[in-house]
Amino acid sequence: MESVITLDYGSGGGKTASLIEQKILPALGNPVLNQLTDGAVIDGFDRLVFSTDSFVVWPCFFPGGDIGKLSVCGTVNDICVSGGKPAYLSLGMILEEGFPAESLERILESIHRMAEETGVSVVTGDTKVVEKGKGDGIYINTSGIGQLVCPGLTPAAIRPGDRILVSGPVGDHGIAVMLSRYSELLQGDVRSDCAPLHRLCSALYPLGEKLRVMRDPTRGGLATTLCEFMDASPCDAVLDEGAVPVSPAVSAACDLLGLDPLYAACEGRLLAVVAPDAAEEALSRMRSLPEGEQAAVIGEIGTDHPGKVLMRTSVGGTRVITRLSGAQLPRIC
Amino acid sequence: MESVITLDYGSGGGKTASLIEQKILPALGNPVLNQLTDGAVIDGFDRLVFSTDSFVVWPCFFPGGDIGKLSVCGTVNDICVSGGKPAYLSLGMILEEGFPAESLERILESIHRMAEETGVSVVTGDTKVVEKGKGDGIYINTSGIGQLVCPGLTPAAIRPGDRILVSGPVGDHGIAVMLSRYSELLQGDVRSDCAPLHRLCSALYPLGEKLRVMRDPTRGGLATTLCEFMDASPCDAVLDEGAVPVSPAVSAACDLLGLDPLYAACEGRLLAVVAPDAAEEALSRMRSLPEGEQAAVIGEIGTDHPGKVLMRTSVGGTRVITRLSGAQLPRIC
Repeated sequence: MESVITLDYGSGGGKTASLIEQKILPALGNPVLNQLTDGAVIDGFDRLVFSTDSFVVWPCFFPGGDIGKLSVCGTVNDICVSGGKPAYLSLGMILEEGFPAESLERILESIHRMAEETGVSVVTGDTKVVEKGKGDGIYINTSGIGQLVCPGLTPAAIRPGDRILVSGPVGDHGIAVMLSRYSELLQGDVRSDCAPLHRLCSALYPLGEKLRVMRDPTRGGLATTLCEFMDASPCDAVLDEGAVPVSPAVSAACDLLGLDPLYAACEGRLLAVVAPDAAEEALSRMRSLPEGEQAAVIGEIGTDHPGKVLMRTSVGGTRVITRLSGAQLPRIC
Repeated sequence: MESVITLDYGSGGGKTASLIEQKILPALGNPVLNQLTDGAVIDGFDRLVFSTDSFVVWPCFFPGGDIGKLSVCGTVNDICVSGGKPAYLSLGMILEEGFPAESLERILESIHRMAEETGVSVVTGDTKVVEKGKGDGIYINTSGIGQLVCPGLTPAAIRPGDRILVSGPVGDHGIAVMLSRYSELLQGDVRSDCAPLHRLCSALYPLGEKLRVMRDPTRGGLATTLCEFMDASPCDAVLDEGAVPVSPAVSAACDLLGLDPLYAACEGRLLAVVAPDAAEEALSRMRSLPEGEQAAVIGEIGTDHPGKVLMRTSVGGTRVITRLSGAQLPRIC
């Protein structure tokens, strides 16, 4: 293989085959993918969870992760928060002419590592190459299939009195990517929280109906996800500002940049709403895992302002949290 | 909505929601997709076929189709030739800042029409927007799930004496896209063959074990697909040059451009290998459908040159057909 990706590698011909044989299969090979058929045949499930996500994060390597890790975690997490046990992934890559083969290798290695950690197999894939200037290094789509193991998770299950929990500090991913874009100008020791949520979700499934809904607050952050939960709800969500975990480094960077950590993307945090009498158990289940050590109850479901998300500030006031209207940080995932 | 796509539409916030509500749901809504959950929950199957494809065709509108039609047909066809009955699709879009909303609407309408025709539902999706100059209008990934209804289709099932069939003239898609790129310089009345293959495949499934393998010869065309079939095979494939259907317009354009129609992509043609005593029935089943009217037996499986694809020319000679090594036509799909 040549050292940079050329258009030929997207041709579907010999160069594509060499890319598959020399790069993709060594990194990701498994009995289903190795067949290189157009469609993977896999054993079925009773009820499926099916999810897709495209990843255009820039830069594609950032402190704490890269687009490969992100593209597995993103889809795996979508399946997990939907109550599914992820099993199979597809991988569609759009490479820009000139992309270093060495970078591709590192990204595929990340995909491999994360697939192993989360117990999923990449069973089908596709690679296209576009001319220099018609892409930005690498874009990835992953779609995933999982067995539904925890049905009924939906914002419609939320009831007054429910507690809102988050598994750790928010905004790290968004701020880490932001800082890495402008590393000549800005310095800050923030690493992305990019991580799989399969263990945290599995720890909460046994709560049954007391587990109302879960989500990974990616684009738009915690605030936007909560606003989505409250859309058309007869309830409101009241956050306690002092309880929302934000790391000092993220907080400092946000102050400097005029950003709000509530809107900055997380890629490895779990937002969950649970029944009041399950909050303690949910918290201790989350905290029993390393990735949930800093889990916290951050708010409560009320009824005073149907459809709204409110923040009780540390000085005793209340403000309304609205949905992000534009792009705070474009291409964050 | 604004008249062009801006970065804000990829933010995951309010603009993304308005894009979904005003453009995507009106075009593609169905009970599963309308839930707008991260993962679609769907009823399961015994055995699944799972496939993915990214589409970067340029230009995204071409005679006979557009990237939307192509992105449904491409994945549906991959499932069908794998022996599956396609049921569910995911849709991941990467839009370039500045892409006209009207074009997006037309593309979504194509997706809708083609999904209806093929009986599939788009059940989950994702949209990202990249800065101007970091994409090329629109890139689409579709992944699909189907129930396996015709197991065992594989090049390994090919036996000496088997017949090679194609459902219609080859190369139309590749040449149509090529001509549309250079329409100021070149004129030619060639339309893409972009079409779904679900009916043709269903018509052949009843042949059972006598149906060895099927494929839609996209990137790299008929020649490359046959070379893939013969990889590591103890047999050879011998094509009869005079029998391969090529339309006069495609033939003329190829002569002019120095291209070989055997390597030009098809997006609505079926290549099938069947047992010798099933060839007549396969041919009449294909011809009974409008999309198979011009089906033909184009060659035979032999044993003289294991692993090779050969062409018996109209003047009585024989030449070896090799796999496409570079990109004959980049970004054809």
